[in-house]
Amino acid sequence: MEQLPAQMTVVAISKPGGPEVLQPETRPVPKPGPGEILIKVKAAGVNRPDVAQRSGSYPPPPGASDLPGLEVAGEVVALGEGAVRHKLGDTVMSLVAGGGYAQYCIAQDAQAMTVPSALSILEAGALPETLMTVWHNVFERGGLKEGETLLVHGGSSGIGTMAIQLAKAFGAKVLVTVGSQDKADACVKLGADRAINYKAEDFVAVVKEATGGKGANVILDMVGGEYIERNYDAAATDGRIVQIAFLGNPKATVNFVKLMVKRLTHTGSTLRPRSNADKAAMVAAIEAKVMPLLREGRIKPLMDSTFPLNDAAKAHARMETSQHIGKIVLEI
Amino acid sequence: MEQLPAQMTVVAISKPGGPEVLQPETRPVPKPGPGEILIKVKAAGVNRPDVAQRSGSYPPPPGASDLPGLEVAGEVVALGEGAVRHKLGDTVMSLVAGGGYAQYCIAQDAQAMTVPSALSILEAGALPETLMTVWHNVFERGGLKEGETLLVHGGSSGIGTMAIQLAKAFGAKVLVTVGSQDKADACVKLGADRAINYKAEDFVAVVKEATGGKGANVILDMVGGEYIERNYDAAATDGRIVQIAFLGNPKATVNFVKLMVKRLTHTGSTLRPRSNADKAAMVAAIEAKVMPLLREGRIKPLMDSTFPLNDAAKAHARMETSQHIGKIVLEI
Repeated sequence: MEQLPAQMTVVAISKPGGPEVLQPETRPVPKPGPGEILIKVKAAGVNRPDVAQRSGSYPPPPGASDLPGLEVAGEVVALGEGAVRHKLGDTVMSLVAGGGYAQYCIAQDAQAMTVPSALSILEAGALPETLMTVWHNVFERGGLKEGETLLVHGGSSGIGTMAIQLAKAFGAKVLVTVGSQDKADACVKLGADRAINYKAEDFVAVVKEATGGKGANVILDMVGGEYIERNYDAAATDGRIVQIAFLGNPKATVNFVKLMVKRLTHTGSTLRPRSNADKAAMVAAIEAKVMPLLREGRIKPLMDSTFPLNDAAKAHARMETSQHIGKIVLEI
Repeated sequence: MEQLPAQMTVVAISKPGGPEVLQPETRPVPKPGPGEILIKVKAAGVNRPDVAQRSGSYPPPPGASDLPGLEVAGEVVALGEGAVRHKLGDTVMSLVAGGGYAQYCIAQDAQAMTVPSALSILEAGALPETLMTVWHNVFERGGLKEGETLLVHGGSSGIGTMAIQLAKAFGAKVLVTVGSQDKADACVKLGADRAINYKAEDFVAVVKEATGGKGANVILDMVGGEYIERNYDAAATDGRIVQIAFLGNPKATVNFVKLMVKRLTHTGSTLRPRSNADKAAMVAAIEAKVMPLLREGRIKPLMDSTFPLNDAAKAHARMETSQHIGKIVLEI
């Protein structure tokens, strides 16, 4: 194994602002603490929270790196005390608490997963954040079951394209909303039973029609605003609505009689502030339930585009156009 | 056993309106169908949904009696085919689909429970609706656990006074909101750890203070309106808020970021439209978990007042003053 350098290139947020504030810097290579591993990063996924952090609206939690980047894939090059799940030279992918936009990144040993051979390293770097978000919110929190119907808003996003594949793999019917015909086509190609162009169709009416009037059992929403009451309308009796972001207005005026009479469950979560123990539990569940599907190549992230680390600003600019379909990843 | 009469006295809703529209009428004594029993009613509880039904805002579900009254206690005087849980002459209490304001009332055999000797017949008639509502919403839906904190709005209502007793019996801390010192005293006497006079105190601040800043794990709300966002503020991380009515405005403007970031679960339910199978399952759970406490006399409805059947209008008028503390019951 090569000697680790003392310094590394990273992309930092020079000040809150637009994509151009993402600037290369030189930082010391971090050292893994107890239960941690050091990954030589080959791919780092770009996610909406990175954009929010860059613009100053989503500060990193206490103790986390100030660098953006919540998921990486690469080679294990150092082990902290008590790190036993992975060994030097292993190729792993992991959710990280921040710091993914860098040549080296610390991960929790318990959160890193072996990259199956069916995935490229770029695909692996685009997987952990999306997979854990979908797994936890759709299955653990939303309780999606075989034979039920899932409605995903933002069907062509990284989250959406993963939700389509996972829900189909577990035997659910999947409806998505998208903003263009291209995105609709991509979602249907991935397995969605129906893609609803929200610019042309009323998603409540289409969901009702597609479910024989019953509505969706689980709704994964990253929009908010006026979608919230419409989600209540589109949900089936005993439906679960899981809020994972607010691309729209987080404030909304809602008639809660609908929630009560239909016995809906409206919940939500964000991944980053969860405890390491919670994240490790999600990883353990994913290794048991989803890893076989990844190994068989039945599920892989839909890749939109790849940028070199130093072009992170371009990657953010693309995400902010919302023209992307699937995941944007940095190659390092 | 006496011969059953052909006719009975009931109190019917002569037209939608105020308490005065409740009028005595003569109706045929109903005959129990398969799985049903006929109860000679001795006590019938008065509940908020009766008031809503009377005023025309809450029509009975299809197939249900048009008469008000959702809970009764009395003597089993006829058995339908396949009714095996109870026998003629048994003293039972039961949730009913309607028709409780009458000398005779049909109940589902599977929903009727033996009246334990620790309860008077008037107490028994005031129990089923309240007990099932609290049991399902606080424990089954809200998942209240030993050591957690429950916040109950409307602490001195029939529902509230039952929620205090049940939650304390199962080892939770109980905070309630009330509108007067009398009501606060009654709630504390029943076991509430703290009664918050919402006219004088901010319940969010008091709940935070009483829980070391953490907030309530479960909130049982029958108010709605501006309480909804305040419930999100008063709830602990991973808290569950269960909506069982809207004494206030069911429409509210809410910042749903709070729901997402705290991973709250906002849900709700109404009892009346549930299937007979669902209600029977609740009764089975209550017979297993709560009946021992009823037998020991550790839990009994707090009784506000009793009216003769023909004075049902007075009972409704009292409920609408909101001056009552505990249950209002009709004696028949």
